[in-house]
Amino acid sequence: MKLATLTSDQRDGTFVVVSKDLTKCIEATDIAPSLQAAIENWSIIEPQLKALANALEDGSVSGKVFDQEQCESPLPRPYQWLDGSAYINHVELVRQARGAVVPESFYSDPLMYQGVSGSTLRPYDAIPLGDVAWGCDMEAEVCVITDDVPMGVAEEEAGHHIKLILLCNDVSLRGLIPAELAKGFGFVQSKPLCAFSPVAISPDELGELWQDSLVHLPLRVDYNGQAFGRANAGVDATFNLAQLVAHAAKTRPLIAGTIIGSGTVSNKDEDGGPGRPVSEGGLGYSCIAEIRMIEQIKTGNPETPFMKTGDTVRIEMLDAAGHSVFGAIDQTVTAVELSDNR
Amino acid sequence: MKLATLTSDQRDGTFVVVSKDLTKCIEATDIAPSLQAAIENWSIIEPQLKALANALEDGSVSGKVFDQEQCESPLPRPYQWLDGSAYINHVELVRQARGAVVPESFYSDPLMYQGVSGSTLRPYDAIPLGDVAWGCDMEAEVCVITDDVPMGVAEEEAGHHIKLILLCNDVSLRGLIPAELAKGFGFVQSKPLCAFSPVAISPDELGELWQDSLVHLPLRVDYNGQAFGRANAGVDATFNLAQLVAHAAKTRPLIAGTIIGSGTVSNKDEDGGPGRPVSEGGLGYSCIAEIRMIEQIKTGNPETPFMKTGDTVRIEMLDAAGHSVFGAIDQTVTAVELSDNR
Repeated sequence: MKLATLTSDQRDGTFVVVSKDLTKCIEATDIAPSLQAAIENWSIIEPQLKALANALEDGSVSGKVFDQEQCESPLPRPYQWLDGSAYINHVELVRQARGAVVPESFYSDPLMYQGVSGSTLRPYDAIPLGDVAWGCDMEAEVCVITDDVPMGVAEEEAGHHIKLILLCNDVSLRGLIPAELAKGFGFVQSKPLCAFSPVAISPDELGELWQDSLVHLPLRVDYNGQAFGRANAGVDATFNLAQLVAHAAKTRPLIAGTIIGSGTVSNKDEDGGPGRPVSEGGLGYSCIAEIRMIEQIKTGNPETPFMKTGDTVRIEMLDAAGHSVFGAIDQTVTAVELSDNR
Repeated sequence: MKLATLTSDQRDGTFVVVSKDLTKCIEATDIAPSLQAAIENWSIIEPQLKALANALEDGSVSGKVFDQEQCESPLPRPYQWLDGSAYINHVELVRQARGAVVPESFYSDPLMYQGVSGSTLRPYDAIPLGDVAWGCDMEAEVCVITDDVPMGVAEEEAGHHIKLILLCNDVSLRGLIPAELAKGFGFVQSKPLCAFSPVAISPDELGELWQDSLVHLPLRVDYNGQAFGRANAGVDATFNLAQLVAHAAKTRPLIAGTIIGSGTVSNKDEDGGPGRPVSEGGLGYSCIAEIRMIEQIKTGNPETPFMKTGDTVRIEMLDAAGHSVFGAIDQTVTAVELSDNR
């Protein structure tokens, strides 16, 4: 089952069921007024959505053309967004670039931060940038949407609360991160609005490609039209998404509609090295910071600049037949005027 | 105007207007289905709510008895919760207790973290505690609810987006903080669900007591029935709530219904000292961590333990006539069973 939210004059958009090939959709608002409302009552709503999805697939209802570019994020106003850092290669690279070691605890205790909730960028929205010195970067990730998760949920149980899967561009402002992290309270200004893929899918859509609470497919990141990242989200994950759900729920329940992110997908090279660029036959990177670290480690100087006005990023996953699974996040950085009086 | 949300079988409760003396209330759901819906369309909805509030006040509508203990937090599911640390005395104390200095930047660049959104404790709910070693503490704060705030809003403009004021108990798990902050990504497990005061009020309810985007009243914190804190929220604030709104909105818009917190209210002694306990004639503390720091500085050993099952905290503000302004947060710590398999 594939679900999306079309842009409308309502903040939560128009909830639709989408065909497997992403060509058609049909309004699901008779079943639930929004995806948020659906996830709040999933055990009742899911069978009805599946029936509608089946009817759309077999042609017994006709639907209309599905246009990814008319989508909101599937949950335009997520109540909670908690982002992990499951691919420790990413963390190792950051540390190696500045000559630090990764604490042993990072291999057993996930990194996680609470990011912007309540607002999202649409998958084809511009990335608004107030100042190029903010060091704008993409982070391509896999995320899950949970139903209500009880406080203290066990890891084994946590996986059952994963109801939908989607992709994310966790926009990061690298220029603001050092000062903010130095204050010790995590990211606020340095992690602005994220964009999510047009379509969220139920795990069964992936068949064998959803295993151990990970998506076993390459995450395609194109930067300015060039292949930039092809890391496999099923490889080199120190933590899976069920473990991240359990981590988030240790001291609090998670409300239905919580989104948990994997952190930047990152693979090592086959020889155990930190990863070569796609142009050199490697799997590349899901964020610019990583290629800068590789450059830093190799030459002492990061060379690839962060994003500026007009730079584009496209994030997508293709199935074995080459079809887009979630639709694409496709964004262009755009300068915004800020008040002089900040 | 005073607003509240009564517990119902709906996640967003039943929206009511409350009389100034907190004795009566009347359903406002014909005007807006929830406080969240009201704040999304404030310029249209506010005059209608004010008219209903006036009618309740002058007796032209009768309403029903208002029972604080039947309240949700005014926004039971806040889309976003960003908590500052405006009272630098609190930060100075933490640092002094461990022999560190406060960085100069802390006096011009607010500390802020993004906390749990989408879920709240009710003002009279138990504080669920999985393990006494988690070091449960209260933090009594003043908060504001904003309407939609544009990215990059100027400080002067930010104050106009403050639509409602309320109190908060920002529950903190001190035992989990050091390891979590050492990871560098801020609080996740160490800041579980917050409780907010039963009633949220419009700034005009405070008259001259709302000045410079601060509430100029003592914040009364009683711990196990004893006066514990009487710090004035209008005193010793390095940043006001408008500045915190502008800080939060530097790189992102804030969605209507965002809650911004002041951080733990904390006053210095008149002589500039870090503050004596109420029992010694001082203004006391809005969290246990502060009295422990005072003990640490004085004797080398913190003596007051963090909260355990059965401990109670009551947080309230009284006006000049001794009437409760926001109603009370009144909570008892209660042990919860956790899964063995976390």
